[in-house]
Amino acid sequence: MSDEKKILLSGVKPTGRPHIGNYLGAMKQFVDLQDKYASHIMIADFHDLGSQTPDDLRSNTLEIAIDHLAIGLDPEKVVFFRQSDVPEHTELAWIFNGVVTVPYLQRAHAYKDAVAKGKEPIMTLFAYPVLMATDILMYDADVVPVGQDQKQHVEYARDIAQKFNNTYGDTFKLPEPLILESVATVPGTDGQKMSKSYNNTIPLFANDEEIEKAVMSIVTDSGTEAESSLAMKYVERQSQEFPRPVNLFLIHRLFRGENELVSLYKENRKNYKKLKEMLTGDMKAFITPFRERREAIAKDTSAVLHILKNGGERAREKAQLKMRDVRTKVGLPLH
Amino acid sequence: MSDEKKILLSGVKPTGRPHIGNYLGAMKQFVDLQDKYASHIMIADFHDLGSQTPDDLRSNTLEIAIDHLAIGLDPEKVVFFRQSDVPEHTELAWIFNGVVTVPYLQRAHAYKDAVAKGKEPIMTLFAYPVLMATDILMYDADVVPVGQDQKQHVEYARDIAQKFNNTYGDTFKLPEPLILESVATVPGTDGQKMSKSYNNTIPLFANDEEIEKAVMSIVTDSGTEAESSLAMKYVERQSQEFPRPVNLFLIHRLFRGENELVSLYKENRKNYKKLKEMLTGDMKAFITPFRERREAIAKDTSAVLHILKNGGERAREKAQLKMRDVRTKVGLPLH
Repeated sequence: MSDEKKILLSGVKPTGRPHIGNYLGAMKQFVDLQDKYASHIMIADFHDLGSQTPDDLRSNTLEIAIDHLAIGLDPEKVVFFRQSDVPEHTELAWIFNGVVTVPYLQRAHAYKDAVAKGKEPIMTLFAYPVLMATDILMYDADVVPVGQDQKQHVEYARDIAQKFNNTYGDTFKLPEPLILESVATVPGTDGQKMSKSYNNTIPLFANDEEIEKAVMSIVTDSGTEAESSLAMKYVERQSQEFPRPVNLFLIHRLFRGENELVSLYKENRKNYKKLKEMLTGDMKAFITPFRERREAIAKDTSAVLHILKNGGERAREKAQLKMRDVRTKVGLPLH
Repeated sequence: MSDEKKILLSGVKPTGRPHIGNYLGAMKQFVDLQDKYASHIMIADFHDLGSQTPDDLRSNTLEIAIDHLAIGLDPEKVVFFRQSDVPEHTELAWIFNGVVTVPYLQRAHAYKDAVAKGKEPIMTLFAYPVLMATDILMYDADVVPVGQDQKQHVEYARDIAQKFNNTYGDTFKLPEPLILESVATVPGTDGQKMSKSYNNTIPLFANDEEIEKAVMSIVTDSGTEAESSLAMKYVERQSQEFPRPVNLFLIHRLFRGENELVSLYKENRKNYKKLKEMLTGDMKAFITPFRERREAIAKDTSAVLHILKNGGERAREKAQLKMRDVRTKVGLPLH
């Protein structure tokens, strides 16, 4: 049975404490999909070299592993591993360099954005699509869950697979993007999209004090551009009068059924204090089990490292098999 | 004793049959220097990916190994290995990507030349200085033998070492170029620099027929621009009347002592036939032992492959030790 499942690959960057937006936007999907697909979830530490200090990279890698285990990622079902435990990625990236041109990489969004901002781009950014193609192609991934704005990543992987296959014969499967349409934009405390760069996040593993503080900071004034744009989307979809305060409601419905919530918001119109108290309660009910599981897992970091090591070995076994095929095809010796 | 020797690294590209110019310009130096330095001679097959067919890459790698053993490279003294037997090079190249910017690589000569010629450069060309830096820095090379026109390679390796050391602490030794001043330009049969692209070469392992044909094709007309430029250089250095035909003499002196040759050329002025016969004889005396040794070695390719495998293991042991240090410094796990 397991062999008939389609293969899924996703990478996560080890970049600090996840928030509710990260969870609902991506992390939760990994858990939801872990029975349906033969999943590979990779902590992309090679990608993040040079963007953070060595100590941060080390601790963030461990923390993000704990985060994913805490939300229910099952390392028996999922190959959960650190990219750097499979150095074959960098070898395949070098081999792909032979079928990729400089102008082709100059068209990548992330690179163009960096140049447009006047940054002097480092090579890890420029060569990012090549390494990312190895992440996907190494494991014969059928699907790669991405947001609408990340479709280009999968296109690069498809292109590179095709170029390699054309030159050296059929070797790599062409992956498809798995676009998670159902995930609406998660609003932050200020009504904009929840994002670390806007400083408007609610941490996924928040403690009670952090939850209370986050709810207190939720903007309830109407009329901001972000709020009205989110409200408009909602109204278009629901064709009903919009519950107020808009932003509070939009965050609240992440934690309680929408119909019930619409009634509650009608009943307590203008009573923002009560609404915020209800949200605090609902958020605590949602977050507390995650936080408690996380605390339990974090007590035994050596068990977490063991899980990663084991996942790395499983991933590397596949990668080495793939590299035997690749090396033979390009004319390199086996070893 | 051996540990006190300075470390030398050089790479050779597996690009077909070597000629006299390759031998005198580089290959011979490897043999001459193998007692003085702790030498590492690497067949740079990762660098040549994408530039030749897989079958050519495979056979050229074997042939160039045989070539070097035939000229006297001693695999007991020299770590003689294939780059691709040490995949750590590609891993270190990726790590270096974090300290190297795109504009910095855009200043590399080989890349600029390709762009100037209107070629669409592939990434193996663009990222070449990064991989080459790993070749040099991985083994703590003190010196890298280069021609005047290749000094930039060593500068790139020094820069990258410095950038890495500045960011992560002292890790890599700064290499020095070892410029082989004594090697004059080797002229080809038409008086221009001997080079495959000019189709004017004398193969190092030529058989008698090839030697005769090559000597017959040596241009004896005076007055070509290449000839007069080489002659001028010679005249400046020697302050004596120039033996004629210039080009014949300049090739001949590669195989026989110059003083003796000057007298011979005076005696046989205008008797080009006799001079060419003498050159043919001298060239055969020079080439035949090489060719015979090569034929003997080529009979047992499995012994050659064993030598490469063994050299690869020695190189890889050093590389893995280096990578433990590098990975710890940049914040990646050991494995």
